Amino acid sequence: MSAKYMDMDTLKFQMYQVFGLEELMQSDRYADYDRETIDMLLDSVKTYSDQKLYPIFREMDENPARFEDGKIWVHEAVRDLFKTGGELGLLGSFFSHEHGGMQMPYMAYIGAYFIMDAANNHLPGYLDLTTGSAHLIESFGTDELRDRFLPGMLSGESAGTMCLTEPQAGSSLSDVKTSAERRDDGSFRISGQKIFISGGDHDKTNNIIHLVLARIDGAPAGTKGISLFVVPKLRDENGALVPNDVTVAGDYQKMGQRGWCTTHLVFGEDQDCHGWLVGNENEGLKNMFLMMNEARMTVGRIGAACTTAAYYAALQYAQERPQGRLISNDGSKDVQQEQTLIVNHPDVRRMLLLQKTVAEGALSLVFQGCRYRELELTASSAEDKAKYQLLVEILTPIIKTYPSEMGYQATNQGLQVLGGYGFCSEFVLQQYLRDMRILSLYEGTTGIQSIDLLGRKVTMKNGAALQLLMAEIQAAIEAATTHEELRAPAAQLAKSLELTQEVLGRLLPYAMQGQHNRYLSDATIFMEYASKIVIGWQWLVMATSAKQALVTGDKSHSVEFYESKLHAMRYYFKYELSRVRGIADILMSEETPTMVKEEVPSLV
Amino acid sequence: MSAKYMDMDTLKFQMYQVFGLEELMQSDRYADYDRETIDMLLDSVKTYSDQKLYPIFREMDENPARFEDGKIWVHEAVRDLFKTGGELGLLGSFFSHEHGGMQMPYMAYIGAYFIMDAANNHLPGYLDLTTGSAHLIESFGTDELRDRFLPGMLSGESAGTMCLTEPQAGSSLSDVKTSAERRDDGSFRISGQKIFISGGDHDKTNNIIHLVLARIDGAPAGTKGISLFVVPKLRDENGALVPNDVTVAGDYQKMGQRGWCTTHLVFGEDQDCHGWLVGNENEGLKNMFLMMNEARMTVGRIGAACTTAAYYAALQYAQERPQGRLISNDGSKDVQQEQTLIVNHPDVRRMLLLQKTVAEGALSLVFQGCRYRELELTASSAEDKAKYQLLVEILTPIIKTYPSEMGYQATNQGLQVLGGYGFCSEFVLQQYLRDMRILSLYEGTTGIQSIDLLGRKVTMKNGAALQLLMAEIQAAIEAATTHEELRAPAAQLAKSLELTQEVLGRLLPYAMQGQHNRYLSDATIFMEYASKIVIGWQWLVMATSAKQALVTGDKSHSVEFYESKLHAMRYYFKYELSRVRGIADILMSEETPTMVKEEVPSLV
Repeated sequence: MSAKYMDMDTLKFQMYQVFGLEELMQSDRYADYDRETIDMLLDSVKTYSDQKLYPIFREMDENPARFEDGKIWVHEAVRDLFKTGGELGLLGSFFSHEHGGMQMPYMAYIGAYFIMDAANNHLPGYLDLTTGSAHLIESFGTDELRDRFLPGMLSGESAGTMCLTEPQAGSSLSDVKTSAERRDDGSFRISGQKIFISGGDHDKTNNIIHLVLARIDGAPAGTKGISLFVVPKLRDENGALVPNDVTVAGDYQKMGQRGWCTTHLVFGEDQDCHGWLVGNENEGLKNMFLMMNEARMTVGRIGAACTTAAYYAALQYAQERPQGRLISNDGSKDVQQEQTLIVNHPDVRRMLLLQKTVAEGALSLVFQGCRYRELELTASSAEDKAKYQLLVEILTPIIKTYPSEMGYQATNQGLQVLGGYGFCSEFVLQQYLRDMRILSLYEGTTGIQSIDLLGRKVTMKNGAALQLLMAEIQAAIEAATTHEELRAPAAQLAKSLELTQEVLGRLLPYAMQGQHNRYLSDATIFMEYASKIVIGWQWLVMATSAKQALVTGDKSHSVEFYESKLHAMRYYFKYELSRVRGIADILMSEETPTMVKEEVPSLV
Repeated sequence: MSAKYMDMDTLKFQMYQVFGLEELMQSDRYADYDRETIDMLLDSVKTYSDQKLYPIFREMDENPARFEDGKIWVHEAVRDLFKTGGELGLLGSFFSHEHGGMQMPYMAYIGAYFIMDAANNHLPGYLDLTTGSAHLIESFGTDELRDRFLPGMLSGESAGTMCLTEPQAGSSLSDVKTSAERRDDGSFRISGQKIFISGGDHDKTNNIIHLVLARIDGAPAGTKGISLFVVPKLRDENGALVPNDVTVAGDYQKMGQRGWCTTHLVFGEDQDCHGWLVGNENEGLKNMFLMMNEARMTVGRIGAACTTAAYYAALQYAQERPQGRLISNDGSKDVQQEQTLIVNHPDVRRMLLLQKTVAEGALSLVFQGCRYRELELTASSAEDKAKYQLLVEILTPIIKTYPSEMGYQATNQGLQVLGGYGFCSEFVLQQYLRDMRILSLYEGTTGIQSIDLLGRKVTMKNGAALQLLMAEIQAAIEAATTHEELRAPAAQLAKSLELTQEVLGRLLPYAMQGQHNRYLSDATIFMEYASKIVIGWQWLVMATSAKQALVTGDKSHSVEFYESKLHAMRYYFKYELSRVRGIADILMSEETPTMVKEEVPSLV
C-alpha cells in the first residue's frame, strides 16, 4: 500500500480553479454553501477514507463477498459505511431540502465520492446505488412512496439497488421478462429473476430497497412496455417488517471488485413479492435512465479514482526503487555509478505520465459534466437549460467510457512500472488492474456507450449537441491562445477538430442515406477517437488555468504544482492526442470487414 | 471451457504452406523427417494436450503452486508432463543426434509446444526451461558436463531452470552479486540469492538443474564479469545424490499463471553449494543469451497460443449467445424478431477479429523467426548464414513483445465479448487475461526489448539487419502485387515502409549526433510502431499464400478457410495497420516530456 492514494491539491485545483465551483455556488440553490463548507466536507471524507476505507482495501479483495446459507456475506465495514454515509449526509447530498436532502452542489458530491473510490473502490458503490435508487423515488415516486422509503435510505438504515439485467436478456432491455401483476390493494405481484445486482443482498442495513424493471401484464413488447417498481427486501405489514419474497440465488465470484457483492435475485418465487409502481406505467426505462445516467457518471468517477490511486502506488515504487543507470549521450553506461531510481528512466516516466494524464484528464471530464449539470439545474433561461442539458447528454457516454477504457490501459502500464513485482499478489497494482476491469462492462458496455454517442447523441436535434460541444472546445482553444506557451497545443487541438469535420463528413452520409448499420459499425472506434480529443480539450483547459495562475501569481498552489500540469498537458498532446490521425484513417476506410454480409466467410 | 483451444488447420497452413517446412526439411540435417513424421508428432501432442493438459487448466489456477514446509508444491500433472516430454522426445527435440537429441526442425518443436501452451499455459514452461538450460550445457559445457547432466534432462528425470534475477538488481544484470569462489576440485562455491525462478523447485523430477549467473571473485564489474554455472539441487557424491545447499525461501503468489511456480532460491547458505563453470569465465551473460533468445521466442509462442485459446473461448460464446437485434438500415430494431447471436453484431465481430488477427499474426511472426533460424542453421554459405542470423536478431525483440502486448489487448477484448460474464470467475476469459499479464514482463520487459530493438538491432552493422528486414517486406509486397485482390493492402504496406524511412530519418540523427538518450527515449513507441508494420507484413504473406492456394485450387484446406485468411488480412489492414500514422506522429514530435531535465517539474 502506498502512502498516498489521491491528491487533495489536484482535486481542489480542478473543482475551484478549473471548474469554478465557487462561482457556481452563487446560485440561490446553494445559499448554505461556500468554499469553506465544501472543504470541510472533503476533509472529513478524506479523514474517514484514510482511517476506515483505505486500510481494508487489500483485505476486501482477499476475503470477498460470498453466498452462504442462502444469504450474502459482505465485509463488516459496510455497516459503518452506511452509518457514516447517513451521518455525513452523503446519501442525499444533492437532493433538495424539501425531500430531506442537503441540496449540495453535485460537483461537491462527486468530489467527495471520488476520494472514497480512490481509497477503496469496493465500498462506495453501496452508497451510490442507494443514492441513485432514492433519487428515482424522489423524482418519480408519489409523496406516499417518498415518505415511506426516503428517510431510511437517506439516513443509511436502508440500502438501495437497481435491478435491470436478466439472464436471457443481458444488455438487451427490450427482452426484460420480469412481470408485474396488479393486486387489488394497488400494489403489484412481482415475479422474475435479475442478475448482476450490485449490493443486492447483505445484512448491514435494516432493509434493502430494490428498484426493479418489469412488465405489467398486457404491456407492449420491447422497451416501451417496461415499468419501474420499488420492491423492498422486507415490506411493512401492520407496522412490522416481513420478508417480501425476494430470495438470493447466488453471488457471482469475480476477478476483481470482490468486496462488492454481485448477486442473483429471484422475485416472487412464492407469489408473495409486492412492488409499487414508481412513475407512470410503461415509462420505467425512460425514468430508469435518470439513475442510469448518474450511474454512468459514477463509473467515470470510479475509473478516474482507481487510475489515480494506481498512479500514486506506481509512482511511489518508482521513486523508491533503484535499478539500472541512465543511458549517457554516447550510449554507454557506467556500471561503477550508483543505480538510478527507476522514475528517472524515460520509459518508466512515460508510463507514469500516461497514468497521471489519464487519471487527471478523466477526473476533469467528470467535473466538466458536473459543471454542465449544475448550469443546467440553475439556468435562468430555457435556452441555457436546453444547451447545458445537451452538453451533459453528449458527454455522458464519453464520461462513462474514457475513464473505464483508458484508465484500465493506464493502470496496466502502472503494473508494468513495477516489473515482475507488478504481477505478484504482494503488490497492489494487480488488484487495481483486476478491480478496474469491470468498468467497461458496468452500466452499458463500451460498445453500447459508443452506439449511444454516435447513433443518438451526435445526431440528436440535427447535431445540436455536437455543435455545442465543438463550440465549447473552440472557446477553450481561443482562451488558450492568449498564452504564447499554449499556442502550439491549441493549434494541435484545432487541427484535430478539422480532422473531426472530415471524419464526420465521411460518416454522416451513411446515416442520412439510410445505412444506419454501416454508420454505426465503427461506433467504438469513433468513441476512442472522440475521447482522445475531448481529453485533449480537458488538458488544454487545465493548462490554461495553471498558466493563468502562474501569470497572476495565484498562490493557491505552488509554482511546481502549476508547472506539473503544463508538463502533463505536453505529454498528453504528444503521446495521446497524436494518435487521432491513425484512428481517423480507420474511420475513413471504406472496408467493412466486421459487418455480416453473405459473401463474408464465417470466423474459423 | 470451450470445445476448441486452437486450430490444427491454421497451424499446419502456417507451417507447411506459408513457411515451407517441407522445403526446409530437404536439408541433410533433417533426413529422418518428412511431413508425415511431423504430422504424427503434432497429432500425438494434440491428443496428449486434449487428454491431460486442457482438462486441468482451470484447476491449476484455482489450486496454485505454493510454498509449504520449506518446499514448493506443484500440481501432480507436472510429473506426467516430464515423463511424456521425455517419451515423446520433446525435451531435446532440436538438439543434434550427437548429444542425444532428435535433430528435429526447430519449427516443428515450436509448433508442438504451441499446442500445449494453448491447452494449458501453466505447464509447458517446466519443459521449456529444461530444454533451454540443457541447450546451454549442450552448447557451452564440457563433454564431462554434458555426460553428467544431459541424459537426465532430455529424458525428463531432471528439470532445468535459469537463474538470473536478484532482489537488488531486477532487470539490471550488471548488478548481479551472486558469487562463485573457486574450490580445489575444480568446482565453485556458489553463494547468493535469486528471485523469480520459474520452476525453481518441486518434487516431480528426481533432480533440478539450475543454470546460474554469478561472479567469480575478482571478476570485472558489470556484465563483463559474469560467468555461467550449472548448479544442481542434488549433487552426486560417490554415486549418491545429496542436497547441494540450494534452499527455497518462498514462492511468489501471482495474479495469473498460478500453476507455474515462481520461486525465491538461496544458494550456499551453509557454504556448501557446488557449481560447475559452463563455457569460459566472464562469458556467462553472452552464453546465457543463447537461452535468453530462445526464451524470448518461447514467450512469443506462449503469447500467440494464449491469444488463440482465448479467441476460441470468446468465439464459442459469441456463436451460442443470442442477444439484441441487428440494427436495420433505417436505424430501427424490430423487437418482435428473435434475438440474434452476438457474433453478428459488428462490434462483437470487431473484437473477435482483433483476437484472431493478433493470434494468427503473432504465430506467423514466431514461425517467420523459426524459418530464418532454420535457414541460418542449414545455410550453405557464410553470407547466407550471416544474413539469416541478422534477421533472427532483429526480429527477436518483436517476437517477444508483440504477442505479449497485443495478445493481452486482444484477450482483453475477448473478455469484453462476454459482457458481464467475462468478469466472472465462472468463465475462462478472465483467467487467460490474468495469465497473459506476465508475458510483457518475462525475459526482459517490453521497455528492455524496445531498447534492444532500436538501440542495438536497428543500428547494428550500420543498419544491415534493418535493411535486410525491409528487403524481405519489400519482396512480400512484390509477391502480393501479382494478385489483383492484394494490390491495395500491398500498397498500404508499401506506404508504411515509406513512413518508416521518414520516422527513422528523424530518429537516427539523434544516435549519430551522440544523443543516445534522446534517440532511445521513445523506444517503446517505436516498438509499437514497428510491430504493427511487421504483423502487416505477416498478414500480407499469409494472404498471398491463401490467395495462391485459391488460384491453384490447392485442396489442403477448404475454400472458406482460405477466404477467412484473406478476410482477416483486410480486417488487420483497416483496424490495426492504419494506426501507424498517428504513432509516427508521436515518434516525430520534438517534445521530450519523459526525459528528466533540470527544468522539468517532478511528478506530483
